[in-house]
Amino acid sequence: MKFLAAAITTLTLMTSSATQAEGTKMLDDVRMVAPALEKYTQGTLLGDVWKRPGLSARDRSIVTIAALIARNQAIEMPFYFNLALDSGVKPREISEVITHLAFYSGWANAMLAVTAAKNVFAARNIGSDQLPAASPSLLPIDEAAEAQRATRVEQQFGAWVPGVVQYTTDILFRDLWLRPDLAPRDRSLVTVSALIAAGQVAQIPYHLGRAMDNGLTQPQAAEAITHLAFYVGWPNVFSALPVAKEVFEKRPR
Amino acid sequence: MKFLAAAITTLTLMTSSATQAEGTKMLDDVRMVAPALEKYTQGTLLGDVWKRPGLSARDRSIVTIAALIARNQAIEMPFYFNLALDSGVKPREISEVITHLAFYSGWANAMLAVTAAKNVFAARNIGSDQLPAASPSLLPIDEAAEAQRATRVEQQFGAWVPGVVQYTTDILFRDLWLRPDLAPRDRSLVTVSALIAAGQVAQIPYHLGRAMDNGLTQPQAAEAITHLAFYVGWPNVFSALPVAKEVFEKRPR
Amino acid sequence: MKFLAAAITTLTLMTSSATQAEGTKMLDDVRMVAPALEKYTQGTLLGDVWKRPGLSARDRSIVTIAALIARNQAIEMPFYFNLALDSGVKPREISEVITHLAFYSGWANAMLAVTAAKNVFAARNIGSDQLPAASPSLLPIDEAAEAQRATRVEQQFGAWVPGVVQYTTDILFRDLWLRPDLAPRDRSLVTVSALIAAGQVAQIPYHLGRAMDNGLTQPQAAEAITHLAFYVGWPNVFSALPVAKEVFEKRPR
Repeated sequence: MKFLAAAITTLTLMTSSATQAEGTKMLDDVRMVAPALEKYTQGTLLGDVWKRPGLSARDRSIVTIAALIARNQAIEMPFYFNLALDSGVKPREISEVITHLAFYSGWANAMLAVTAAKNVFAARNIGSDQLPAASPSLLPIDEAAEAQRATRVEQQFGAWVPGVVQYTTDILFRDLWLRPDLAPRDRSLVTVSALIAAGQVAQIPYHLGRAMDNGLTQPQAAEAITHLAFYVGWPNVFSALPVAKEVFEKRPR
Repeated sequence: MKFLAAAITTLTLMTSSATQAEGTKMLDDVRMVAPALEKYTQGTLLGDVWKRPGLSARDRSIVTIAALIARNQAIEMPFYFNLALDSGVKPREISEVITHLAFYSGWANAMLAVTAAKNVFAARNIGSDQLPAASPSLLPIDEAAEAQRATRVEQQFGAWVPGVVQYTTDILFRDLWLRPDLAPRDRSLVTVSALIAAGQVAQIPYHLGRAMDNGLTQPQAAEAITHLAFYVGWPNVFSALPVAKEVFEKRPR
Repeated sequence: MKFLAAAITTLTLMTSSATQAEGTKMLDDVRMVAPALEKYTQGTLLGDVWKRPGLSARDRSIVTIAALIARNQAIEMPFYFNLALDSGVKPREISEVITHLAFYSGWANAMLAVTAAKNVFAARNIGSDQLPAASPSLLPIDEAAEAQRATRVEQQFGAWVPGVVQYTTDILFRDLWLRPDLAPRDRSLVTVSALIAAGQVAQIPYHLGRAMDNGLTQPQAAEAITHLAFYVGWPNVFSALPVAKEVFEKRPR
């Protein structure tokens, strides 16, 4: 397990013993069933993909936990929540990622993430003083852009499904997205990762464009997609590539 | 937790202690990780969405458990199976929802639901006398409509994948759908909810149309979709909206 | 449970006591919640579908475990890993299926399968001598076909998402697919099953064509799809049928 320690230590400033312990347990199991998968995990994934220069370990952590929450995969949450905290993701940011994905991945996905995060937070003595307020002062809204979005959705669906239209405006775009403890750029990175993770191709154009408006660069988006291939499977990424490419091509370089 | 009790009590005629206990446990965990998510759960979801007049708590329960089974999410099943029973869903109806979704969501989804329902049923002393018979007398079939459906599928796929075509007729439409312990309208509501929950957009037109033929009104369908946004995530609902709208527009008002 | 024993025994040369025990436990639970689902499991699924002549129990086992891994469904893995071993699937083949699906279904899916397979292997005293090497001698590659594939993907996406393109060539098609402990035809069967299981319709044409190039016959593909209807749900199969039919029609009979 020396190799795991080495692989992770070069990723983060501080590798906690909790991260090491979770990683070791995981790889001990893998070795008993699939030695090749252990090799790919240590060599390719942790030893190579995570160290590619185009995206920080912090951003890769956000992408990874978004993918795990979107796909309801508790098994790797202890390791990756710990690795996220080691990589500079704040507890209040993890809290916001979970709350955000209640809306974008489904309520029970967030609840499963809560049970995993609860244990990680408790083991690190992360208390309520490090969590976001339930109702903080919100970030300012871009009224023109929001009015345009709301009008478009209202015209499309308002007559048929008014409840969805109302909650989308009131709870998502005039509340959730304006919560201050996760930067809009990171919130977008979470959203796009969750969409790719769940194969929700039709929603990628709007949110990838929004992510880039919020400051995600094209090379960062490309690295996030590359990173996701391992966590959400090649087919989800290959289904996302044509629409991502279309978004990239339409934007000024 | 007084607030939870109040929120749930106004939903149902009888709030059981089991429902309260599961809900309290869930929210205690949430508070330790994401105070905002607790606020949205109590305030927005249980306190507002569930009380919208367009759909009864009974129907919302059916929609919710269908979504959880379709998405293989055991974590919220104890609370929502209990809430369903409190809201007037019969044990035999829950049993039929699970059996139905073995076919529409996959066998292992039903098996996971069984393990959760088993404990809820046992705690309430629900025995085999309250369950549907394995082979009851079936509801009458609309032979003309079924012949039309069978012919269409046979012409499309019969030459290439005869096994699927055969089981679809023999087991699904001439057996499962005719089982008497879940009304056809509720069976349709379960099916449509599961399709939206799993992002299976291509199958929505047929089943949403069938649901409305079986008595689901357009406003009820709209409320079910609004309700689902919270349980299956906004992206699944926004992917379903264009096809749902097309179904709505084509029907006589 | 005599009936379960009989149903399984006629499927495989040797029904292990582990398979019987897992099956019995599963059906005991089902009976307490859904007697109809027990009837369909024993009668229709194990008693009829699994015995259809178009696909061997070995192939059906591969299809089933691929579907369970792709859908992250641990609950049925103990039974079906055991049934697979009883049906002639080698431990090293199960190991390769899991490693393969790390890439095609996502890393955490493989990790969950590892935890289930670990226990099954341990109970049967399957040690590392029966597992594939981490880095074995690879099968020969069809350079012309691979060059064609690589060029096409490079032209489509190389300028935008170079990381994905690179790993697809280096790790997937010049490494993973050439690992010798799972035959290319079986690897394709795993891939196609996982795609249908996850509703990844857009990726089916390439991989179903590749599967048939690798020796999967059209009737076998049709039986695999029929089999999958029960494990991944009817909607996933009905979404796959039009694209599968198109693949079938384009090939010389």
